[in-house]
Amino acid sequence: MAQRKKDYRVIVVGVGMVGSMMVRVLRERKFPAKEIKILATRERIEEIAGRKYQVKVADAQEFDGFDLAFFAGTEGASGASKLYGWEAVSRGVVVIDNGKDFRMDPRVPLVVPEVNAEALKRHQGFIANPNCSTTQMVVALAPIHRAARIKRIVVSTYQAVSGTGSKARVELEQQVRDWAAGKKPVWEQYVAPIAFNLMPQIAGLKHEFPGYYEEEIKMVKETRKILGDPRLQVSATCVRVPVLNGHSEAINVQTAKKLSVAQARRLLAKAPGVVLVDQPDLDQKKLKFLDPRRSRWPYPQMADGRDEVFVGRIREDLSAKNALDLFCVSDNIRKGAATNAVQIAEELVKRNLL
Amino acid sequence: MAQRKKDYRVIVVGVGMVGSMMVRVLRERKFPAKEIKILATRERIEEIAGRKYQVKVADAQEFDGFDLAFFAGTEGASGASKLYGWEAVSRGVVVIDNGKDFRMDPRVPLVVPEVNAEALKRHQGFIANPNCSTTQMVVALAPIHRAARIKRIVVSTYQAVSGTGSKARVELEQQVRDWAAGKKPVWEQYVAPIAFNLMPQIAGLKHEFPGYYEEEIKMVKETRKILGDPRLQVSATCVRVPVLNGHSEAINVQTAKKLSVAQARRLLAKAPGVVLVDQPDLDQKKLKFLDPRRSRWPYPQMADGRDEVFVGRIREDLSAKNALDLFCVSDNIRKGAATNAVQIAEELVKRNLL
Repeated sequence: MAQRKKDYRVIVVGVGMVGSMMVRVLRERKFPAKEIKILATRERIEEIAGRKYQVKVADAQEFDGFDLAFFAGTEGASGASKLYGWEAVSRGVVVIDNGKDFRMDPRVPLVVPEVNAEALKRHQGFIANPNCSTTQMVVALAPIHRAARIKRIVVSTYQAVSGTGSKARVELEQQVRDWAAGKKPVWEQYVAPIAFNLMPQIAGLKHEFPGYYEEEIKMVKETRKILGDPRLQVSATCVRVPVLNGHSEAINVQTAKKLSVAQARRLLAKAPGVVLVDQPDLDQKKLKFLDPRRSRWPYPQMADGRDEVFVGRIREDLSAKNALDLFCVSDNIRKGAATNAVQIAEELVKRNLL
Repeated sequence: MAQRKKDYRVIVVGVGMVGSMMVRVLRERKFPAKEIKILATRERIEEIAGRKYQVKVADAQEFDGFDLAFFAGTEGASGASKLYGWEAVSRGVVVIDNGKDFRMDPRVPLVVPEVNAEALKRHQGFIANPNCSTTQMVVALAPIHRAARIKRIVVSTYQAVSGTGSKARVELEQQVRDWAAGKKPVWEQYVAPIAFNLMPQIAGLKHEFPGYYEEEIKMVKETRKILGDPRLQVSATCVRVPVLNGHSEAINVQTAKKLSVAQARRLLAKAPGVVLVDQPDLDQKKLKFLDPRRSRWPYPQMADGRDEVFVGRIREDLSAKNALDLFCVSDNIRKGAATNAVQIAEELVKRNLL
């Protein structure tokens, strides 16, 4: 029997919010990496969680001799995964890409380990990490789908500015500081100020689907691929809200089989990666902030800095047969991006697929 | 033929956010009032839009000789409309109540003038103003309901703190100032800080409907009453967001008859009280803030201070037959409360029902 390799040489491509969180999560979770090399568009030193990294300029040869590469998510023709993704695979590296470019590619498994880790078995060296809003939704819905087959999902999102990137986070913070100082807002990341406001648009227009923006179509297509059910119907409205970090989703599901609220709660209480926060009648005069054990329902500041998906507000939808409503919240930079990617790598190690 | 009375003696009961906005809107819209008297729980002077009012303590006799009374919305056993509402009616006053106590009372028309003004014909002296989130939804949906009969609504709300009251608005502002000053948040109006956060709970638990909070059940029952359709199915999730003023709603409707996006846009473009803001592909690098003519979609700061309901993001829902998605935004203190109440009074005058 071949000796299982114990330590891996790892590359992280991109060192914005998601890339640096990938490095942080790799260390937090003690991923067996004997080396972490960071590639980006320019050389510099980056400090991540108290450790300094020499960032190198991305180049095909940099992948030689490495086992695993995380692409943090630059997308499109000049994005790193188009430029170097399959090139890295051809050099023997297993790629986990957080960007959108190859998620729907039939060669590429799109994986949330709690939901469809078995899809990794057929990997061809390139694995995609789903869009943040899709990831938390499928973690919350997979147990319901398996028990009762979801036919239709209507989801409205409440997405934090960190999903846009660190500049958007800085912009919201600056707008709030300016407001407190009595100054007028300045904006650049969005088409209007985001402080004390919200916007029903995430990403660009998707011309094949009139009236839809791209994030909404990602939630349709990626959910079907991850849950392995092309019949699944999804209607999504994606909205940016003035929250720094942590996406929320109000989800309505109609199922083929009747599932009671009690059954759904039992399934979700034991579901991997889920924290059930669902005590609607808890007598809670003052919530001890960030203590989910004392909350009636999940909220973004509860999920900030955590790796799980928090689910609550589970109730029977009175408007249709076999329908449930629920609300889920998750850290979009962690579970929605970096943590899920590292969990994919952990699953590859566990299954000896690396 | 009797001479139509031209000037009315008007009372406003309660002078918080909604009550003072009622006074402001009565004057803005030049309601034919020869007197506006304000009643509240304690005597004081209140300045509203540059004019000083002597606030008197509420008492049954204060209603004698008046034509019309607006109750701003204190609710429950010790609320003004329970204490003085029908008493005022018995003294010959027509009451328009913004509170929830009598909205579902069969004696009481629940009116949004653009939608069901004819319900005023049968009034018995007491008329109810709907809940803010219901009002803007029915303004946006009535034209669709009339053309294609809505069978089911799935709505998720994004509700501003002004809906809770002026203390909640001050609390969000203070939390943001404290954040800018590096201080920890203090909270009292909600069970957690609302700055950079959100909460899937509005109002108290509704025990007859397990897992639901009251705002959600209001949206079910009031929508049916206003649209006059008890078959109408509604699933609502109500969420408080860190927006100062202006509620938003992501709405999915399934209709009996097919309605195209173009048809829905045409209906809404000419619907009373609606401003259609729906240019998904507008090339808009920098939005001129608060200029709806240059926006792709509605957002709360566009509606703040306006009396209309702004509707956009109209698109065919890909997940079901005969289904549409849309997004609507409105000033919850104006159209959601004060303006709608004054519009009811205007309609009473117009129909000679006062």
